[in-house]
Amino acid sequence: MKFTIQRDKFVQSVQHVSKAISSRTTIPILTGVKIEASDEGVTLTGSDSDISIESFIPKEEEDNQLVDIEQEGSIVLQARFFADIVKKLPGDTIEVVVSDQFVTRLTSGSSVFNLNGLDPEEYPRLPEIEEENVFKMPKDLLKSIIRQTAFAVSTVETRPILTGIHWSVEEGNLTCTATDSHRLAMRHAQVETNSGELTFSNVVIPGKSLTELNKILDDTDDWIDIIVTDNQILFKSTNLLFFSRLLDGNYPATKNMIPSSSKTSVTLNAKQLLASIERALLLSREGKNNVVNVKTMENQVLEITSVTPEVGKVTESVETLNYSGEELRISFNGKNLIDALKVIESTDITIDFTGAMSPFVMKPADQDHMLHLFSPVRTY
Amino acid sequence: MKFTIQRDKFVQSVQHVSKAISSRTTIPILTGVKIEASDEGVTLTGSDSDISIESFIPKEEEDNQLVDIEQEGSIVLQARFFADIVKKLPGDTIEVVVSDQFVTRLTSGSSVFNLNGLDPEEYPRLPEIEEENVFKMPKDLLKSIIRQTAFAVSTVETRPILTGIHWSVEEGNLTCTATDSHRLAMRHAQVETNSGELTFSNVVIPGKSLTELNKILDDTDDWIDIIVTDNQILFKSTNLLFFSRLLDGNYPATKNMIPSSSKTSVTLNAKQLLASIERALLLSREGKNNVVNVKTMENQVLEITSVTPEVGKVTESVETLNYSGEELRISFNGKNLIDALKVIESTDITIDFTGAMSPFVMKPADQDHMLHLFSPVRTY
Repeated sequence: MKFTIQRDKFVQSVQHVSKAISSRTTIPILTGVKIEASDEGVTLTGSDSDISIESFIPKEEEDNQLVDIEQEGSIVLQARFFADIVKKLPGDTIEVVVSDQFVTRLTSGSSVFNLNGLDPEEYPRLPEIEEENVFKMPKDLLKSIIRQTAFAVSTVETRPILTGIHWSVEEGNLTCTATDSHRLAMRHAQVETNSGELTFSNVVIPGKSLTELNKILDDTDDWIDIIVTDNQILFKSTNLLFFSRLLDGNYPATKNMIPSSSKTSVTLNAKQLLASIERALLLSREGKNNVVNVKTMENQVLEITSVTPEVGKVTESVETLNYSGEELRISFNGKNLIDALKVIESTDITIDFTGAMSPFVMKPADQDHMLHLFSPVRTY
Repeated sequence: MKFTIQRDKFVQSVQHVSKAISSRTTIPILTGVKIEASDEGVTLTGSDSDISIESFIPKEEEDNQLVDIEQEGSIVLQARFFADIVKKLPGDTIEVVVSDQFVTRLTSGSSVFNLNGLDPEEYPRLPEIEEENVFKMPKDLLKSIIRQTAFAVSTVETRPILTGIHWSVEEGNLTCTATDSHRLAMRHAQVETNSGELTFSNVVIPGKSLTELNKILDDTDDWIDIIVTDNQILFKSTNLLFFSRLLDGNYPATKNMIPSSSKTSVTLNAKQLLASIERALLLSREGKNNVVNVKTMENQVLEITSVTPEVGKVTESVETLNYSGEELRISFNGKNLIDALKVIESTDITIDFTGAMSPFVMKPADQDHMLHLFSPVRTY
């Protein structure tokens, strides 16, 4: 194998595929980046067997030559060294030459690296995916959806299915749900399908996979294709393939958990509420339960309090923009509310309570595409 | 005690004195910030008994009222909570009221914190310093001096005196020296003294103290007074006092360690050399010795190489701007050279070698105020 490549393109591709590579893998070959030079360009692959990422650098792009291929071939190079090296090489281009015994020479400007490579024949093949169930959406919408749900997945392995995000599609409407059984985030979005009849549910994508995908996707409104099979999902955009395995098992039915009625409804400025809860939790860094108490006051004011006996007490007053229904005292995990408030992009939010011991719902005041559900905490 | 204070001034002062406060102290009262309101303003104090910092907020500054004092007094509040709280309070001002049992109420905007304080009578007194041996220099010069020497102190406690920086003054010339016995950094600077006869040596300031001081000082050419006593040094600028204890013991004589002759002399671009050594060390992250090998080549080129057997080999070529003397092969700790190159502000540097097994000197090519000395490493 022998080729010369634009350094900045190579750096970007290596960074993308590195997102899939874990140094803790038990399969030695997967600590490497696979590099393959063909007549069309250079393909990089990284994988931890849960996630696989393939990035392609074409020979030419918009009349610029990106790669000059002298000899086709492939090699696997240690990712942790390789990513740093290409980033720090001094020249605008890098020459890559593989000789006997997988020894690979990288030359750029005044710098020459000779690296011990690994046998590319040992590298596992990527899953083959039939493009039957395809739908698509703009990348920036996908990024929002991930950001607005992934934070709510469970981080403990006691119920592995809850470490994933549940996706379902019905009549062109995608619903994404994440819950750790104390709080739940749900997001709806319109997607384009290749046939009007595309319907699926119980597709559960590891939260970690989507978080990694979000780091790679650029925030543009270019479209991304999404293909679902029995045990894999593939995200496909220009020169980039992102595969993730799906989680096995049945995701809990969440629809019935969401209360449809309301006994107390308040509308608040989201930023004000966020700042107040953050301050209320300042003294409870030690106590890990993060409990805050909310009480409706006269004059349409919510009082938020938090007590840490050895340290002190915080009292916050938040004016409501709208208040209706019964008086209320309720306690809940303030940290969960903070997480949700940080992903809601609307100025104002509405919270619907159905009593001190029942779950309550927070939504953007002006939109219906997102919903956050929280369990209260018993404090006596 | 009762006063109302501008929040931004309070935040800054709290951040300054917090630099001295360690949560790992064995003296409980020192985990707190001491706050004292007098007729002139508010004084904050933080200390870990090695370093003590006092920050003063005057009642008025340039016709702005900063503090409104209703009742004098003092209190000690837990630093880790207090610093976060003042930063996040919502109002432009904060009212501080101490009531019975040291309970302290902070009120700002819609937010009220009630904190359990500590008895200010238990707080230790700051050292009393006689202002005999005083000299001064601009703050930005002091910051440079610290940055250009502190990195070279020893971080191991086997020879405690080497964790400090040695300062001496003679005829208005300050010399600062730091060494960990493998490398040495020396910096000279002119200072102003209150009497022409101020002379001292064997003043050894803990490297950590100076590093903390550097975080607080703003990068202006305002003057700072420095007062040295037998066991303390005091840095004194407007509204800020910074005390540090001095290290006991005799600092090693370093003057004789510096070779005065040279067998091989090279001048190089500092940035190019830095980048080359950084790349040469990319493969040796595991091997902790960070050894690089340098060889003089024909055509006035230095070849820098580094080998990590299981991973590979790096070869870097650096063109010299000037080369004279004997051919040379030498090995040394590349990380030490990187540290020094990062604090040299000149474009070009000169290195004077006196043979493969002798210490060598690196200096800015155009200035004589700074010197870095390195021991070679035996590689056979």
